[in-house]
Amino acid sequence: MRSPDLQLPPAEEVLAELAEYVALPSVSRSASAETMRATAEWLAARLAFADGRVEETDGFPVVRGEWLGAPGAPTVLVYGHYDVQPTGDLGEWSTPPFEMVRDGDVVRGRGVTDDKGPVLLVLALARALLAQRGGLPLNVKFLLEGEEEIGSPHLPGYVRAHAEELAADLVISADGAMWRPTEPSLSIASKGLVALDIEVTGAAADLHSGRYGGTVANPLHALATVLASLHGPDGRVAVAGFDHGVPELTSERRAEIGAVDFDDEAYRASVGAPALFGEAGYSTLERLWERPTLEVNGISGGGKYTVIPHRAVAHLSCRLVGRQDPDRVVAAIAAHVAALDVPGVEIEVRGDPGRVPAYRIEPDHPAITAATEALREVYPDQEVLLAVIAGTLPATTLFEEALGAKTLFFSFATADEQHHAPNEFLRVRRIDEGMRAWSALWTRLAGAR
Amino acid sequence: MRSPDLQLPPAEEVLAELAEYVALPSVSRSASAETMRATAEWLAARLAFADGRVEETDGFPVVRGEWLGAPGAPTVLVYGHYDVQPTGDLGEWSTPPFEMVRDGDVVRGRGVTDDKGPVLLVLALARALLAQRGGLPLNVKFLLEGEEEIGSPHLPGYVRAHAEELAADLVISADGAMWRPTEPSLSIASKGLVALDIEVTGAAADLHSGRYGGTVANPLHALATVLASLHGPDGRVAVAGFDHGVPELTSERRAEIGAVDFDDEAYRASVGAPALFGEAGYSTLERLWERPTLEVNGISGGGKYTVIPHRAVAHLSCRLVGRQDPDRVVAAIAAHVAALDVPGVEIEVRGDPGRVPAYRIEPDHPAITAATEALREVYPDQEVLLAVIAGTLPATTLFEEALGAKTLFFSFATADEQHHAPNEFLRVRRIDEGMRAWSALWTRLAGAR
Ligand SMILES: [Zn+2]
Ligand SMILES: [Zn+2]
Repeated sequence: MRSPDLQLPPAEEVLAELAEYVALPSVSRSASAETMRATAEWLAARLAFADGRVEETDGFPVVRGEWLGAPGAPTVLVYGHYDVQPTGDLGEWSTPPFEMVRDGDVVRGRGVTDDKGPVLLVLALARALLAQRGGLPLNVKFLLEGEEEIGSPHLPGYVRAHAEELAADLVISADGAMWRPTEPSLSIASKGLVALDIEVTGAAADLHSGRYGGTVANPLHALATVLASLHGPDGRVAVAGFDHGVPELTSERRAEIGAVDFDDEAYRASVGAPALFGEAGYSTLERLWERPTLEVNGISGGGKYTVIPHRAVAHLSCRLVGRQDPDRVVAAIAAHVAALDVPGVEIEVRGDPGRVPAYRIEPDHPAITAATEALREVYPDQEVLLAVIAGTLPATTLFEEALGAKTLFFSFATADEQHHAPNEFLRVRRIDEGMRAWSALWTRLAGAR
Repeated sequence: MRSPDLQLPPAEEVLAELAEYVALPSVSRSASAETMRATAEWLAARLAFADGRVEETDGFPVVRGEWLGAPGAPTVLVYGHYDVQPTGDLGEWSTPPFEMVRDGDVVRGRGVTDDKGPVLLVLALARALLAQRGGLPLNVKFLLEGEEEIGSPHLPGYVRAHAEELAADLVISADGAMWRPTEPSLSIASKGLVALDIEVTGAAADLHSGRYGGTVANPLHALATVLASLHGPDGRVAVAGFDHGVPELTSERRAEIGAVDFDDEAYRASVGAPALFGEAGYSTLERLWERPTLEVNGISGGGKYTVIPHRAVAHLSCRLVGRQDPDRVVAAIAAHVAALDVPGVEIEVRGDPGRVPAYRIEPDHPAITAATEALREVYPDQEVLLAVIAGTLPATTLFEEALGAKTLFFSFATADEQHHAPNEFLRVRRIDEGMRAWSALWTRLAGAR
């Protein structure tokens, strides 16, 4: 299937381009509009083969492009982002974040793996195909946004407004990550997300614990009671109605997950926890991939001294699976809390507006079949793992709703490459592997019609 | 008993002196050593009648003095402090904190009631007695410290090192407060205090709640479980051994407390809580005065975003009564927490070093008898209430241990006068009432021997 005579550009060439790209500090949380635009323009220039251009949104611009020279062939929309996470504490970086540095088998720098490298390799491949073959095997559109790391606030409006121009048979995301460096993997699902605050209010102001102790309810006690009630001692979420829409774990899926080479003890050591813990009756990987979670992410209230605080707040988030409805989840938690009838305080449960249901692409979807075969070409000795992204990818839902297209995650980042952290890195071998795999994928998708 | 011809200085004269004193911003938490010393020297000058002087400690200096011209009469040690609390947010003050302002029946300013006014009125009275009578009815020593508002860290060392010089039959504290403005009251007990931290540790670093959710214990969940277990649903502390040394509430004491005019609804409205709450089986005032408490004063851990924090900490404090032993209380809580055996985390319980047992002076102690009679002279139509300071006064324990003397609280501050808060005030009438009462008290104590 793969044309034997395609000469891929050497990784060094792609890396030289990546070094220029990394030097543009496109931190969407803090950069100026000028910096973001300069980055978008730099990227659009690399998309000249597809009429690359910068387009306005209500926030930072998007980079668009399309090569539509394969009439009759399918059309794919390649998605990625040019913005990056803040660096955090520079003291934790061993090299300057915006100067890409080669370090043995990896390159380091902010954005090398999330998502500048994985996008650039697709552009490099496309240019090689056009130069050597005069065309791509199928029609390709590009949508590269500048606000992914701040939650893509303006992407939905833009995509809905340009749905016709962006129409495609399949979205292929160059963002995401392979699960582990040890074998190729594809993500067939990602969890949904809904966040909420639980706020407990007692007296009108903080009270001295001596002068008032014993007379009024302490909002921190009430909050602890509420939070402790959300899980059973077996680690299961104890909120009635929370699991509405959660599919039962089939014995087939259990067997599939059981076949994955996963070492609990190595995992435990890698996170540094004294022991692993979670819902009884499920293995670690079953919990991570298939079960919904409810986590308290933060608590604030009171301070160090002898005060009865008048207010205590917990921030929670739930990762959803299957057909769990984010709105119903918030309502179930609110009803659970109300039923506790905690005395002496007022309790408010407030769901955050950004709610994302779980996403899933069937394992027998033609895109998964094509992607699996493409990965087998590049990694001939290895099984392709069908994994789950336990995180949340709001764009998948958006593309499904606005464009009617499923999203295939086909990134050559790896989840351990310090995404969002200091010393972000990318394995150099992924550049070549990525170009070969995208080439194989496009060829197979073109033939699949 | 009260000599009919003593002319007390007019309140205006004392207030003029107080305005000078308030203008010295002796905030022990933040002031320079120079400011603290200047304040101490100003105060020592007002103690010239008693050989007033500034003496070094390992922290801010103390002001000392003694008038010992009544051989054969008892000796009392007058305790107070010249330091004040920080102002907090200046925007919450209606007048500048260090410019004393008269506002109808009250004066406002930082320290007017805690503790600059209540100390100055004693000095003004002593000077009047000396000027008009040539002597005081008994021997009086003064110990006025500069670190009360930061927990008196250097007072114990100083008092122990100077125990012989400070020896007295009774300590009379000009610090403290009457319980309410509506009737005179004396405090016969104060609660003890022990503070502790409960720290829960999970993984080695914060984890992304998507990428790791469901695989490890969340320290905030564990902490909520621990904290929720510390009280029963009836509000009672549920830690085995916590109540060791807590006396049973006698029917006599219940009757006494029941006779106090106390309006639950007015109290509830004053603190602004939706309802009062506390240990079942006790009235609000019984809980406040006679029952130990365990309060969570603060929780920290995680933040606003989707993180599984690796660490969560609660700060707690217990107010103790009767013979509760602070060390045993910490040990009981540690044993309770260990017995919960919360999975997947490590939990450490750490008691703070500053531990204070409860303090009590018997209602039939001669000092209480004398003080009651003195208050009856000044407030002839009113019953004198025997109240409890639900807060903690470490100096009482210190004086009992180091000097073998009980402490009588005889302050003319009132608990509602915004101690430690913006717009601190003092009722002007308390100046005159205070001088009259101290005069009557000293006379009675002199005769009581
Ligand atoms: Zn990304
Ligand atoms: Zn004070």
